[in-house]
Amino acid sequence: MKLGRMNHIGVATPDLDASIAFYRDVMGATDITEPFVLESQKVRVCFVNTPGENGPNGEPTAGTQVELLQPTEADSAVGKWLDKNPLGGQHHVCYEVPDIHEAKAWFEGLGKRVLGEPRIGAHGTLIFFVHPRDMGGQLTEIMETPKEAH
Amino acid sequence: MKLGRMNHIGVATPDLDASIAFYRDVMGATDITEPFVLESQKVRVCFVNTPGENGPNGEPTAGTQVELLQPTEADSAVGKWLDKNPLGGQHHVCYEVPDIHEAKAWFEGLGKRVLGEPRIGAHGTLIFFVHPRDMGGQLTEIMETPKEAH
Repeated sequence: MKLGRMNHIGVATPDLDASIAFYRDVMGATDITEPFVLESQKVRVCFVNTPGENGPNGEPTAGTQVELLQPTEADSAVGKWLDKNPLGGQHHVCYEVPDIHEAKAWFEGLGKRVLGEPRIGAHGTLIFFVHPRDMGGQLTEIMETPKEAH
Repeated sequence: MKLGRMNHIGVATPDLDASIAFYRDVMGATDITEPFVLESQKVRVCFVNTPGENGPNGEPTAGTQVELLQPTEADSAVGKWLDKNPLGGQHHVCYEVPDIHEAKAWFEGLGKRVLGEPRIGAHGTLIFFVHPRDMGGQLTEIMETPKEAH
C-alpha cells in the first residue's frame, strides 16, 4: 500500500455548535460545512476546511479537514470516548486509499484489527476503522477517495 | 486571524524507530525525514511526508505531515504524556501563521493560555503552544510559515 492523502483528523466535541464557533472565531476558519447526522456512527458531524499548500502557480488546494464529531447518543463509540475525555479532542486520523477492499485485505494481512465491514462514511464513500492498539495508539480511518474532485 | 495550513499532527511514540518502520511498512510512506534531537522540547523527532491534493494540472503538493516524537527524557512534556498513553498516539496539531507575534497577541487577547515565549521549532521557525483546555481539548501548536517554499 502507498500512503494516501491525510483527508481529515477527527475531533470529538461535547458541543458541536460551540466547536464551530471556536473554529470560526478563534482559529479563523472561513469555510465550515453544514452539520448533518451520520446515523451509522451516531454522530452529528461537520467539516472545517483548511487551506492546503498552493500549487506551483499559487493555485489553492484543499488541505486536511477537521471533522468535528458530537455523539447523538451517549452509548456510542464517540459518546464513550467523551466520557474519558470530557473536553473533547483528537479522536482519529483518516487517510485516503484508491480501493477500500484492497486496503482492508492489506491491513488484515498484516494482522491489524479492522473494525467491521466497509460502510459509507461522512464523505459518501466506503470507510473502515483500524484498532488503535494496532496502529501506534491512533484510531485510524481508511476511506476510499471520492471519485469527484474535492 | 485567518486559519492557516495544517502543517502537521504531532504523534508521540515510545519507540521512534518502530514508528518509522510502521509508517513505512504498514502505512506505505515513502518519504520520511532523518530523525534529529530537538533539545528545546526534549524529543527525538522526524516527519512523515504525506501527499497533498493535486493542483489543477495534477501537480503534487505537500500534505499535512505526521511529526513523530519520542521523548529523550522521561521528565519532559512528551515523556509525561506517554506515561498516561503508553502506546503513543495523537499529541498535538499544528497550524501555520504568517506572523508568530501577531498570533500570540491574538490568542492572548482571547484569553487563551499561550505556553511560554515563541521559540524555534522543528521546522526552524518560531512556534508556541496553546493550552489544550482552552482549545477544545487539543494541544495546539502555532508555527510561523517557513519563508522558503515547502
